[in-house]
Amino acid sequence: MPAIVSAFSTPYESRSSLEAWELLEKAVRGVVENVEKGIDPSEIDLVIVANFSDRFGGILHSGPLALRYLGNPDARAFRVENACSAGGTGIFLAWNMVRAGLARNVLVVGFEKMSKAPTSTVANQVLMAAGSPEEILVGLPFFASYALMAKVYMDKYGVGEEDLALVAVKNHENALRNPLAQFKRRISVEDVLRSPYVAPPLKLYDCSPLSDGAASVIVSGEPKRYTDTPVYIVGAGMAHDKPGVFERDDMAAMIAAYKASQQAYKSSGLTPKDLDLAEVHDAFTISEIILYEMLGFAERGGGARLLRDHVTWFDGELPVNASGGLKAKGHPIGATGVGMAAELFWQLRGEAGERQVRDAEIGLMENHGGTGATSVVIVMRR
Amino acid sequence: MPAIVSAFSTPYESRSSLEAWELLEKAVRGVVENVEKGIDPSEIDLVIVANFSDRFGGILHSGPLALRYLGNPDARAFRVENACSAGGTGIFLAWNMVRAGLARNVLVVGFEKMSKAPTSTVANQVLMAAGSPEEILVGLPFFASYALMAKVYMDKYGVGEEDLALVAVKNHENALRNPLAQFKRRISVEDVLRSPYVAPPLKLYDCSPLSDGAASVIVSGEPKRYTDTPVYIVGAGMAHDKPGVFERDDMAAMIAAYKASQQAYKSSGLTPKDLDLAEVHDAFTISEIILYEMLGFAERGGGARLLRDHVTWFDGELPVNASGGLKAKGHPIGATGVGMAAELFWQLRGEAGERQVRDAEIGLMENHGGTGATSVVIVMRR
Repeated sequence: MPAIVSAFSTPYESRSSLEAWELLEKAVRGVVENVEKGIDPSEIDLVIVANFSDRFGGILHSGPLALRYLGNPDARAFRVENACSAGGTGIFLAWNMVRAGLARNVLVVGFEKMSKAPTSTVANQVLMAAGSPEEILVGLPFFASYALMAKVYMDKYGVGEEDLALVAVKNHENALRNPLAQFKRRISVEDVLRSPYVAPPLKLYDCSPLSDGAASVIVSGEPKRYTDTPVYIVGAGMAHDKPGVFERDDMAAMIAAYKASQQAYKSSGLTPKDLDLAEVHDAFTISEIILYEMLGFAERGGGARLLRDHVTWFDGELPVNASGGLKAKGHPIGATGVGMAAELFWQLRGEAGERQVRDAEIGLMENHGGTGATSVVIVMRR
Repeated sequence: MPAIVSAFSTPYESRSSLEAWELLEKAVRGVVENVEKGIDPSEIDLVIVANFSDRFGGILHSGPLALRYLGNPDARAFRVENACSAGGTGIFLAWNMVRAGLARNVLVVGFEKMSKAPTSTVANQVLMAAGSPEEILVGLPFFASYALMAKVYMDKYGVGEEDLALVAVKNHENALRNPLAQFKRRISVEDVLRSPYVAPPLKLYDCSPLSDGAASVIVSGEPKRYTDTPVYIVGAGMAHDKPGVFERDDMAAMIAAYKASQQAYKSSGLTPKDLDLAEVHDAFTISEIILYEMLGFAERGGGARLLRDHVTWFDGELPVNASGGLKAKGHPIGATGVGMAAELFWQLRGEAGERQVRDAEIGLMENHGGTGATSVVIVMRR
């Protein structure tokens, strides 16, 4: 069974001193160095690079560049992009290719250097390109699409802005324990509610930031050769929804995440009740609440209750985004899904330091793209 | 053995009236409609989209969009990018995933809409991003990198600009027979030699154009279910070289193409002598000459002789780029490698009309990225 045998992450930052290719280099070299029993670059036969837009980092064709940093000219490499789920897609592919015998050891590396966008307006235009053509043509930014989803959800289930705020407060608190996180500042519900509207009902503190960063893992078909404590990928799923928010039957749902998680539960033989922790794609606070329901942590409309009841807080029954999540750990797009896998690797090995979830044995990650048109769910077990 | 069961291509044009997503839509719908025995969208379980830069077409996350046009919400999709070899990489992955049982039928679609770049300077900056970071930093455009390769090659092997010109003349002549081709104009060696220098020794007519277009194929594990005359992928290879031209041992070689072709010959059990035709990546005239040698059509330094002796012309022993090649058929980057596969599909089935190569039974395609840092070689047989 394929397992992760090594992980690495740069800190996620608002503005890294490193260029895009230096972030890539650090993540490639770092994950090789972190292999406990050592790995020769020649044993890595495939590198999958996850990256969102060349308008951010200014580089394309990052596959062969990753091979330069790896030091194995005979490996193969390509870049994968599925909006913000590029990293999850890379891990899903790696898992499949190792299972199928198409590769022995796959290095999956994700990176994004977003701080070079000249203005946040430009950055939003780049992000918008992950929407549907209609959304691009009318100029509907991502935060507006998520605001529509939030409005529909909140009206339908009687959830308020103060419930959304709890996601931000929880994830900011979690990030205080994570040395890799972008934000290290405790915030209150009042802080969130007082922050300016970006697109009502979403306010500034409901949104994940622009980030620089890179993360990497090695997925191996012979895990015990590289570490005594691999983290097994016991199940995975990948599914899609209609590209545009407006064309979905239920704007208050994220069907791709539901479908991907059903695949992951089925292939792992596990259920939500088996999970000890989860890292989910809280690009906006509303998405974490909807995801609770899609992933089977709560019934429809019951997501906010998990927050009010502290179930998903750090000391709760099922800590979600103990890392700080996209909201506070940061969201360097191509890196995000790979960073989630790295986080689960550390958590399930008991190496997560101050943010260690107690008795973490089984974890889940959900990484989605666009407004949820692609979702990847991976279940791991130590 | 995986085979191609359907192919489609839009015309390649300097300026298409279609937007990027409309090109994608046309290619997805077209290849499904072209399946002779019919295919239900639900039988296609994976779509791989090849696309170079969102700075050209303005869209990202094209995977789920392709699924919209396909009409199968349960398929999976992702975009792959490996510079100009994105399309070849997609086909290489499809071949592997079908062989390994990870997918039954894979739709590979490539597209690029380059005409929206505000100026050719901007377009060149986008292209440059496929080079190494050092080349990007010093601002070395692609045509300049290829000019360096040309200079080294020409000095080493005593080849002149009039030899390079023969590639352009041949491929322009071939394009006259191809209704899909961008250029329909016969040119002479004198025309090429009189065209302005872009980067000596390369002149305007040594360069492939900016193009709009899309192409698609379906790679199937059960080919006879969809057509009585599939075109089998009998061997394939994918390999890499150092990203920067300056860091290679031999700037007059394209080692990735050599390695990829060796893999393809080995896996197919065929040799260059078995080939009836080839489509190769003549982004610049020099690359076609070097490729003759890398792919085993000629000995080192003997590439130009194949042109002088008419071996690779349309009526020669081994016609190369009977389609017109990138040089004259056009080079819509993401589409290019997929379009090569579509061309071989038609040629090997005897459906290439006026440009039909006589008795074509076995064909090869070579699609590379950057200045050859990635190369994909596929061998097909009817």
